[in-house]
Amino acid sequence: MTEELDITGAVCPMPLPHNEQIVLGHGAGGKMAADLIGKTFLPAFDNPALRAGDDGAVVDLPPGKLALSTDSHVVSPLFFPGGDIGHLAICGTVNDVAMMGAKPLYLTVGFIMEEGLPLETLQRVVASMQAAAQEAGVQIVSGDTKVVQRGKADGLYINTAGVGVVPLGRKLSGAQAKPGDVVLLSGTMGDHGVAVLAARGELGFETDVQSDCAPLNGLIEELLTACPEVRVLRDPTRGGVATTLNEIAKQSGVCITLKEESLPVRPAVASVCEMLGFDPLYIANEGKVLVVLPRESAETALEVMRHSKYGAGTVQIGEVSADPAGRVLMRTALGSTRVVDMLAGEILPRIC
Amino acid sequence: MTEELDITGAVCPMPLPHNEQIVLGHGAGGKMAADLIGKTFLPAFDNPALRAGDDGAVVDLPPGKLALSTDSHVVSPLFFPGGDIGHLAICGTVNDVAMMGAKPLYLTVGFIMEEGLPLETLQRVVASMQAAAQEAGVQIVSGDTKVVQRGKADGLYINTAGVGVVPLGRKLSGAQAKPGDVVLLSGTMGDHGVAVLAARGELGFETDVQSDCAPLNGLIEELLTACPEVRVLRDPTRGGVATTLNEIAKQSGVCITLKEESLPVRPAVASVCEMLGFDPLYIANEGKVLVVLPRESAETALEVMRHSKYGAGTVQIGEVSADPAGRVLMRTALGSTRVVDMLAGEILPRIC
Repeated sequence: MTEELDITGAVCPMPLPHNEQIVLGHGAGGKMAADLIGKTFLPAFDNPALRAGDDGAVVDLPPGKLALSTDSHVVSPLFFPGGDIGHLAICGTVNDVAMMGAKPLYLTVGFIMEEGLPLETLQRVVASMQAAAQEAGVQIVSGDTKVVQRGKADGLYINTAGVGVVPLGRKLSGAQAKPGDVVLLSGTMGDHGVAVLAARGELGFETDVQSDCAPLNGLIEELLTACPEVRVLRDPTRGGVATTLNEIAKQSGVCITLKEESLPVRPAVASVCEMLGFDPLYIANEGKVLVVLPRESAETALEVMRHSKYGAGTVQIGEVSADPAGRVLMRTALGSTRVVDMLAGEILPRIC
Repeated sequence: MTEELDITGAVCPMPLPHNEQIVLGHGAGGKMAADLIGKTFLPAFDNPALRAGDDGAVVDLPPGKLALSTDSHVVSPLFFPGGDIGHLAICGTVNDVAMMGAKPLYLTVGFIMEEGLPLETLQRVVASMQAAAQEAGVQIVSGDTKVVQRGKADGLYINTAGVGVVPLGRKLSGAQAKPGDVVLLSGTMGDHGVAVLAARGELGFETDVQSDCAPLNGLIEELLTACPEVRVLRDPTRGGVATTLNEIAKQSGVCITLKEESLPVRPAVASVCEMLGFDPLYIANEGKVLVVLPRESAETALEVMRHSKYGAGTVQIGEVSADPAGRVLMRTALGSTRVVDMLAGEILPRIC
């Protein structure tokens, strides 16, 4: 094998067949599918379970409970500042598994490709997936490819499912927030949503906002080691911080009150939102975590998270109280209080 | 909750909102998504892990190795004689996990829905998924829904990923076929592919062929209990029996020789294939298993399989020898021998 091209930072271990496209035969389970797997997926994702070439993978699992999660990714466009659909597909599932308090270990991946997808696009995405999997310390052990006719998909959709192990004795859930707890957020809101929107060219003006898409399992593990008393971890993706906190408030039967001036938003994101009439509280993030934990642990948690690569911007944004149960409130800079509801409709489709 | 409508045999636990359709807001992660989950997915798939409402599931796992597999399903049309995309999505992954010698336990499911999909269609598919999951004895513990704009999908695509446990000491793989082994097939070839083709109305004539789509984990467990010496299990889906046996021959470095007159094909499937110039050896099956095992175990295996619901038609179709390694051969009724290659291109797109 030759190493000819540098793709998104990773070295592609095969000559890139220019102008080649995905055709229906790549999804038929025969020679072309085997060729695609052998030349595109195996060299990138290489590991013993995948190399075995069976219909599934058999792997070892450390003792503990099993955490399982899945996400399909339909982001448009496929590439955006700070990430791409492949990076997102790995980080999204790694993060969902990590939010359960688990160490993510293995991923499966399912590609739905539109006939005519340039092979070069697929290879860039695959290289990006492997780079993200490597950073997160997970293996892609089983996969599947389907091809649909032109006009029956939008280039490429990717599903990932992930498994991890929750160490014995650890239990995190959205139902465990308690009055007296505080709420931390690991950094600025809305970067991912605004970056994807900008990449679509729909803004009518330039912005240099990058997606925050990142694997958070390292940050989470450091946090849980220092503060095993953490009650809830949740990544505020679709629906944003407002929707995610509403889910936690409902699951736990508590009230969460946010302090408006503590909410972190990049100036560039704030101006895009202001111009378009969006509220950053409802914009998707892909590399942020909401942490609910006892007040007395907050200082330790803040220090640990701020020292971690993806938690440098961690701040306390709110507090948990008993009433009104199931509600999220906002104390504004002017001292008034308003209800922060869940996202009602759709503001930015195909953001992840 | 009222119980108003009988959908594909299952009782739908909610009033069916006629004429309602999936809209982009159902994929936004806000109120509409929560509503769809609460009214459509939760009542059907109900179990403690899913009910917890977190981003992932945490479940117990018996001791053993972990088996993992995934499949995306893009079958067209969504409903066909003998099954539908939901039934297929459950059985496909249950079977892939079972083929590793594992007991399938938990599934994740990812829905990619096209804007405008009738809610009633989704509900029929979901009811069918739950019926299949119940028959297979697996739980759907985590899921995800995405919605793409009209014209960016074809109604509905479904990904499932499954995990199961391989009992300690059990090891099955496509690389374990040995000279002297025999090959069994659990029933007729090509039923699924021909049933889907007929449902598309592309045949130009009528046929009553039904898909063989079925969960095979029960059959597999009975077989492995009686014959723990089984070396390879594989379901001949896309690419058919010919392609699957080629994969096994290559993985194991052996030759597999088929006896033409032993190959089971329904007369109706045979006539469709003859008219269209297809070979049933290359047509997809969704409820069949290929078994490679030592010759001395064949009789026991045949008896056990023939007594099982989905193995009544089991026959011995071939033998394993050393040379030519990596090849599948066919001994014809006339006594000549020809090479049976992998599927080269695509004959029936979107069959699964």
